[in-house]
Amino acid sequence: MSTTPAPRTRPVADPDTSPARRIVASALAPAGVVGDLTEFHQRLVDAQNRIYTITERVSLDSLDRWNYEPSRGVLAHESGKFFSVEGIRVRVFEDSVRQWDQPIIRQPEVGILGILVKEFHGVLHFLMQLKAEPGNRNGIQISPTVQATRSNYMGVHGGGRVPYLEYFQDRDRHRVLADVRQSEQGAWFLGKRNRNMVVEVTEEVELLDGFHWLTLNQIHRLLALDDLVNMDARTVLSCLPFTGGGVADEGLGAALDRSSVTERGAHSMVALLSWITDTRTRPEVDVRTIALDELSQWRRTPERIGHREGRYFDVIGVRVEAGGREVGRWSQPMIAARGPGVLALLVTRVEGTVHVLMQTRVEPGLTDVVELAPTVQCTPSNYAHLPAASRPAFLDAVLRADPGQVKFDTMLSDEGGRFYHTSNRHLIVETETGPHPEPPGFRWFTLGQLTELLRHSHYLNVQARSLVVCLRSLVSAQSDRHR
Amino acid sequence: MSTTPAPRTRPVADPDTSPARRIVASALAPAGVVGDLTEFHQRLVDAQNRIYTITERVSLDSLDRWNYEPSRGVLAHESGKFFSVEGIRVRVFEDSVRQWDQPIIRQPEVGILGILVKEFHGVLHFLMQLKAEPGNRNGIQISPTVQATRSNYMGVHGGGRVPYLEYFQDRDRHRVLADVRQSEQGAWFLGKRNRNMVVEVTEEVELLDGFHWLTLNQIHRLLALDDLVNMDARTVLSCLPFTGGGVADEGLGAALDRSSVTERGAHSMVALLSWITDTRTRPEVDVRTIALDELSQWRRTPERIGHREGRYFDVIGVRVEAGGREVGRWSQPMIAARGPGVLALLVTRVEGTVHVLMQTRVEPGLTDVVELAPTVQCTPSNYAHLPAASRPAFLDAVLRADPGQVKFDTMLSDEGGRFYHTSNRHLIVETETGPHPEPPGFRWFTLGQLTELLRHSHYLNVQARSLVVCLRSLVSAQSDRHR
Repeated sequence: MSTTPAPRTRPVADPDTSPARRIVASALAPAGVVGDLTEFHQRLVDAQNRIYTITERVSLDSLDRWNYEPSRGVLAHESGKFFSVEGIRVRVFEDSVRQWDQPIIRQPEVGILGILVKEFHGVLHFLMQLKAEPGNRNGIQISPTVQATRSNYMGVHGGGRVPYLEYFQDRDRHRVLADVRQSEQGAWFLGKRNRNMVVEVTEEVELLDGFHWLTLNQIHRLLALDDLVNMDARTVLSCLPFTGGGVADEGLGAALDRSSVTERGAHSMVALLSWITDTRTRPEVDVRTIALDELSQWRRTPERIGHREGRYFDVIGVRVEAGGREVGRWSQPMIAARGPGVLALLVTRVEGTVHVLMQTRVEPGLTDVVELAPTVQCTPSNYAHLPAASRPAFLDAVLRADPGQVKFDTMLSDEGGRFYHTSNRHLIVETETGPHPEPPGFRWFTLGQLTELLRHSHYLNVQARSLVVCLRSLVSAQSDRHR
Repeated sequence: MSTTPAPRTRPVADPDTSPARRIVASALAPAGVVGDLTEFHQRLVDAQNRIYTITERVSLDSLDRWNYEPSRGVLAHESGKFFSVEGIRVRVFEDSVRQWDQPIIRQPEVGILGILVKEFHGVLHFLMQLKAEPGNRNGIQISPTVQATRSNYMGVHGGGRVPYLEYFQDRDRHRVLADVRQSEQGAWFLGKRNRNMVVEVTEEVELLDGFHWLTLNQIHRLLALDDLVNMDARTVLSCLPFTGGGVADEGLGAALDRSSVTERGAHSMVALLSWITDTRTRPEVDVRTIALDELSQWRRTPERIGHREGRYFDVIGVRVEAGGREVGRWSQPMIAARGPGVLALLVTRVEGTVHVLMQTRVEPGLTDVVELAPTVQCTPSNYAHLPAASRPAFLDAVLRADPGQVKFDTMLSDEGGRFYHTSNRHLIVETETGPHPEPPGFRWFTLGQLTELLRHSHYLNVQARSLVVCLRSLVSAQSDRHR
């Protein structure tokens, strides 16, 4: 039996020093220890010249140590490590039966995505890494402090140790602000989850090459640039507590701020939880593994695995040469989406409080059947062959919105370690206050209700988490406008 | 697109009319529409004479329409419905590797366990059913309003409709107080979950034979009687909001009451969530199905499936004849535990606030690796052959506690539809305020923190939920003592 001390009642927190309030304060601080964003952009350009990957598309057959295993019908690494590409047959029984086949990535380990946080001059700063990934369209992106698969930090790659990892492995010495496993793309990953962590330190932290301390305001403003803040950074930031109280104007910023503190949502939390429970109980989802060569509508060639009609995505091969901090050569399969996706949130104000329209969505790779997805989540080109009535709800509404209603519009990438030049247009569209329909499968949430759910696993999918961060970033944008 | 009305801000709730406060008020009301408990006991005796099952233990080979299927190695019903008994091989990789084989029940459907609630004379009453189950040691037990497997309410049994089910299927017309899927015994069920629902109605409700409206105080006091309030009732009640404020004395009741409202736990919620995330990330649990005949240490005979050393449990056959409201004859396999279990919570007061010592526990049937379990959860007879050092932590401490420290001590049954005469001693033991060790794998929680986690799936296992209800019942007991 250990000698851990007795439980002690913690002192009641001063609301102004609560993590949530200090995080919002950081979202309102345009300058930090790297100076302002102009200075940071110079560092970005410098980094782009030093850190790079050269990625060449090659045929799947020519990948080094990756082979198609005919006995199991999967594409896997000789070591059995990293990940594999497998085939699945999905059947969803609800009012009707939907069935389809597809390739999917199996990577059952739980990796760590971690951001280190430290206060400088009274403002929280986030330690972000400039990191090149083979699938990135534009070289380097802004990434979390640590981005490590289990193989990664167990040394399967044979590489060096992961910098700063020790802060996330020895949590008891530091203050944890968020620590929750979250799913990744349920259409492309079978049961993949990563541990999203934010840890605050007070001790001196050595600043390594390629790492920079940024305020949340700075990260929020960089988020408005195409393909710069990476997916892993966005999902970790979404799990932060975020309770406002610092925005005084009467514009969208204040309405967002109210949305983060109020419990006066259109629906109570118990009603929303009950609705989620209902959508999880209703469908029966049957996912079984089948050989890649047996997938209906898909064809495996020496070159790639692709859909017969050219829809959805391809599994391709790449050969990579990396320079900069991490040096190496390797080859691997990747997923390359066939067209850019559209991810959109419809938001409205109800008595001055922002509400967000969410839908529930069945995805075969999710651990718990369904998760909350944005108002719109689709790849429009997949619907080109279908009649207009088959287009996803609200897709045309967000694409044809009046420019004044569009509050956020940026292309943001999927994770460049697995996805090749795959990016989604992130849109936030505000509709006028007034009657808004809530079709079956959709509900209005406040930002505070979404933040509360993000303390737990399996509620918001990765696309929804990405847009939650974009929505919160409008607090920074609005506060600057009124400065 | 539907014409669902616009989101509207709900009025701010008066705290005294919040569901949590009204539920605590019901826990303090000893008399209700059935009168006091003396009158209810007369009804119980009447019911015992009319509602019964005659259960005869028979060999597995003689079960009607249940067969061992040699090709799959499972024991299943001819229709493919209800459930099956399968074999699994479990491997848990952590610091060391643990491996074992066992039979397990596969019943992947999500059933409904629901309690209907209605206010009479200003006090919330719970509609409880007196229900006989074949595995019950003592005939009838107090059960939720609705206890329906999916087969049940889809009509696979060929029986009639389930009374009161419509209130739980048409939630929008009523007020939902709780609605969350929760796991069942992870050692005996593979991935089983039930939807736990509490729904408040204001309309007139027809009172059918065998159903009774009880206050929460009455249910709490009946909980102190052996094998009377069934497992399904206990798990549904555990999911209720329960925020105190009504207990004025300075005894354990008031300390529990503070524990339900305070956020001043020994650990912050984010620290506890981080600890849970860590315990879920650390072990790798591999569960694979193997034939029942291939289980190491287990033997299938025409009679039963049992452990070679006589430990753990048997899979037995029963032939059932039911009389009363539900009439019928059938036969089925059941699990019969080899010895009674011990479930215990160690509680302590920290600055007048009750804290509960919880552990995390890997169970092969859980959907998400580990859940929180009580301080002690074991079957002592399974340890009889092992040295004292191998006995579970705190087992001897709770069994040898001074009588004055034992606040609750009752045998409570596992679900009589699957478990034959299987019961656990439920113990709540208070230790003196002072230094308390927190060994690896254990943490102190307040009752309020546990209640908050119970809004979500996969945090507290069924044994922990059962003890949470026993702990809350002490509020009723204490308030009566000081009346």
